[in-house]
Amino acid sequence: MAVAVETFFLDENYGGTLQKQLQEIVTSGILSGRFLPGERMPSSRKLAAHLGISRITVTLAYTELLSNDYLTALGRSGYFISETAPLPPRFEPSAQNGENQVDWSRALGQRFTTYSGVGRPLDWRNYKFPFIYGQTDASLFDHGNWRRCALQALGQRDFEALTADYYDQDDPKLIEYIVRHILPRRGITARPEQILVTMGAQNALWMAAQILLTQRRTAVIENPCYPELREILNQTRCNTLSIDVDIDGISPDAIPADADVVFTTASHHCPTNVTMPLDRRRALLNCAEKHDFVVVEDDYEFEMSFLKPAYPALKSLDHRGAVIYIGSFSKSLFPGLRLGYMVASETFIREARALRALLLRHPPGHIQRTAAYFLSLGYYDAQISRMSKIFAQRREVMFDAMQAAELHIAGQNSFGGSSFWMAAPTGVDTTQLSLDLRQDGVLIEPGAAFFHPHAVKANYYRLAYSSIPASRIAEGIEKIATAMRKTGYT
Amino acid sequence: MAVAVETFFLDENYGGTLQKQLQEIVTSGILSGRFLPGERMPSSRKLAAHLGISRITVTLAYTELLSNDYLTALGRSGYFISETAPLPPRFEPSAQNGENQVDWSRALGQRFTTYSGVGRPLDWRNYKFPFIYGQTDASLFDHGNWRRCALQALGQRDFEALTADYYDQDDPKLIEYIVRHILPRRGITARPEQILVTMGAQNALWMAAQILLTQRRTAVIENPCYPELREILNQTRCNTLSIDVDIDGISPDAIPADADVVFTTASHHCPTNVTMPLDRRRALLNCAEKHDFVVVEDDYEFEMSFLKPAYPALKSLDHRGAVIYIGSFSKSLFPGLRLGYMVASETFIREARALRALLLRHPPGHIQRTAAYFLSLGYYDAQISRMSKIFAQRREVMFDAMQAAELHIAGQNSFGGSSFWMAAPTGVDTTQLSLDLRQDGVLIEPGAAFFHPHAVKANYYRLAYSSIPASRIAEGIEKIATAMRKTGYT
Repeated sequence: MAVAVETFFLDENYGGTLQKQLQEIVTSGILSGRFLPGERMPSSRKLAAHLGISRITVTLAYTELLSNDYLTALGRSGYFISETAPLPPRFEPSAQNGENQVDWSRALGQRFTTYSGVGRPLDWRNYKFPFIYGQTDASLFDHGNWRRCALQALGQRDFEALTADYYDQDDPKLIEYIVRHILPRRGITARPEQILVTMGAQNALWMAAQILLTQRRTAVIENPCYPELREILNQTRCNTLSIDVDIDGISPDAIPADADVVFTTASHHCPTNVTMPLDRRRALLNCAEKHDFVVVEDDYEFEMSFLKPAYPALKSLDHRGAVIYIGSFSKSLFPGLRLGYMVASETFIREARALRALLLRHPPGHIQRTAAYFLSLGYYDAQISRMSKIFAQRREVMFDAMQAAELHIAGQNSFGGSSFWMAAPTGVDTTQLSLDLRQDGVLIEPGAAFFHPHAVKANYYRLAYSSIPASRIAEGIEKIATAMRKTGYT
Repeated sequence: MAVAVETFFLDENYGGTLQKQLQEIVTSGILSGRFLPGERMPSSRKLAAHLGISRITVTLAYTELLSNDYLTALGRSGYFISETAPLPPRFEPSAQNGENQVDWSRALGQRFTTYSGVGRPLDWRNYKFPFIYGQTDASLFDHGNWRRCALQALGQRDFEALTADYYDQDDPKLIEYIVRHILPRRGITARPEQILVTMGAQNALWMAAQILLTQRRTAVIENPCYPELREILNQTRCNTLSIDVDIDGISPDAIPADADVVFTTASHHCPTNVTMPLDRRRALLNCAEKHDFVVVEDDYEFEMSFLKPAYPALKSLDHRGAVIYIGSFSKSLFPGLRLGYMVASETFIREARALRALLLRHPPGHIQRTAAYFLSLGYYDAQISRMSKIFAQRREVMFDAMQAAELHIAGQNSFGGSSFWMAAPTGVDTTQLSLDLRQDGVLIEPGAAFFHPHAVKANYYRLAYSSIPASRIAEGIEKIATAMRKTGYT
């Protein structure tokens, strides 16, 4: 038997080289059982002619397949499917997998599908005016140097960092860089034992909640608030108290004496962008001492302080070890990286490390090592500098456009950041507005998800400038203003 | 002011090129505030002479620093620290961070540091006879092609896969490959909505436990058992019942009627390696229907079935949707990858997806895409073939050596796998034995952690052959036998 040359088709939309495509056709033919061991392959000349491609491409693909034992070469007789090629599936897959014969309403002990998200489409890049928050702007990210750092981290010297099961440990190079270069710029001193790498700030918040809260404890959060944090706390079934932020963030005076944990985004309140002044930071820490609560400081966007120098982190003012600090590389590098870190008392970090080991062991070594190189070669700081300059320009363009269009800015971002917190006229439902605007290629983020569900203010929304070029901002803002006017509310 | 050439020192142990080292010295000098904006850098000629390196190396490093705005060039006057260079830390780090002023015994709501692990050293590669389980053998892993696939996944075309916040989604390419090529070889048919990518099997087990168990529910586990699973269940505070496995794995007859979830490693029991026969698999599923429980099937090592073809997965026999299937790339690729997957009813996967979004959002995109390429180009199957051949050889050498040394094999691995489950004479404490053997460069895994804590059999241990070359096996086994004789028990 021979594999017929007619079974080979090229796919114009294949995302790789011709050689790779050929290789994939052959391996998938073998693994799916269509090509059988001992069958003769078309000669490279014949296959090349059939597909209209160069013979060398076929030869290179065959050579690669030889080295992985998919093919064998029998001298002048040509190429054959190897008798010891990796095996095709051995079972007839079952015709159908029942879905509804288990009573899941009974089988599920806990439900997690209660939260529906802010409402951002995955294909946001297809929108011309993406005022979307938290995604990476390809024009700002130093992809070339990231690639080079990743390549270095894929080298022989870093084989261990790539492949090893670290158990509950982290990449020492990344920890060292965080200790020596990142934390100092927030005024924080820490020892390696006081740091744990996490799968982004999200993962850090989740772990902090698991460790600190129970059904009998009280958590205090800001209102409005990062919606996923509210959801995390719901899952712990603790008593959660939402306190409205004022222009200086959350007020210590409003925190009750029975609070166990206070979650705050002091440097850059999510989503209003207000910044807690130094005297209130000190008051909050005094209050923590007086009422004996722990503070979880989510410092998720401190890098983007381009209008004024950032205030030191709460953690840097904390002489009692009562602050659990959370940092993230999602905004300064990219969110798909899924890297963040926690800094806290060694006692707490020990628990977090044990929890993380049960949860997922450790963030992938390769990603930690790549980040360590990117940071230590100065690319990270260079990128933050670049982003800050561009964000400052975009912010100015956007501010002017919003003034001209008479859109009302509700939040204060006097330090920078990457978004504006906006208020539409009372009566406007920004969830509906956001859906309407998608038809015009405009993405805005409705504000509803940020509020306590019993006190949703449906007219708020967020406009980010982290992923939209300055040249499109004015037109996008004008479209929002037009849609707003159409609602009839003023 | 000028930066003195004398402040430059090369570190012989630096893990990169000279150019990178120079670049790092300059950026860290700037970021730490030692080099100030406007200061003149040594000329490339002078610095090259001082360090005894080529001038072109210095020039290349300077050029890179120029492009990232750490340096500026002023015509013939040379290089200066840029006035707009990324900024050094702005705060004096606080002198000390209090650690003991918070009463953590009160502040911690839940403790996770109760489990101490099997006891494996991180520096296992420094041992000459590493009978360690679950780490990657550099001589077997196809590092070159992994590197090439990673490089492809770092390309411009995959920018979105690398950087994007996927929210609760996964890489469609990886899901597609799992559906089309991996699940069929376990006899499983699934739709993409029935699959979730996880951070290894550990993460999948954790999520399954969170979703299915509460304090009022009963989980059944095998005894002995994967220790981290027992620990995960302890944390959910469910009622956990340990059932001793026999030579066919866990017996359905021993499962009580009030069981809610049964966790099993049917294809390859951890740690004894026994395989559940097909008739018992069917009996287990019948029992699940009768008593209305859900089965979590951890199929962590099915790829290593080189002695006999693997039986189809429990999931493939499940027509009611009562099995939650867990697969992992940790054994077939490498554990530092942290990739696994769950296959289950859509209702369950929806909950798991929502939980994962709160926990960590999604496994890093780059890692998913790299794995998708490695799989789709056939390298994964080729590697499994290669590993199977080598493991079969090692297993044979080891079996003979153990017979000669009169070491007693307790478990059955008639399908393959990567380890033997061993019984030392009664009275031997393998935890102590393992520490003693480390002095001789031998790593074995004491068995205590695998047993229910109230019925620990201290004389069991595990010997893996996944990371030790065949040439060292006999000598290592002889050393174990010698140490065993020294204990005086027979």
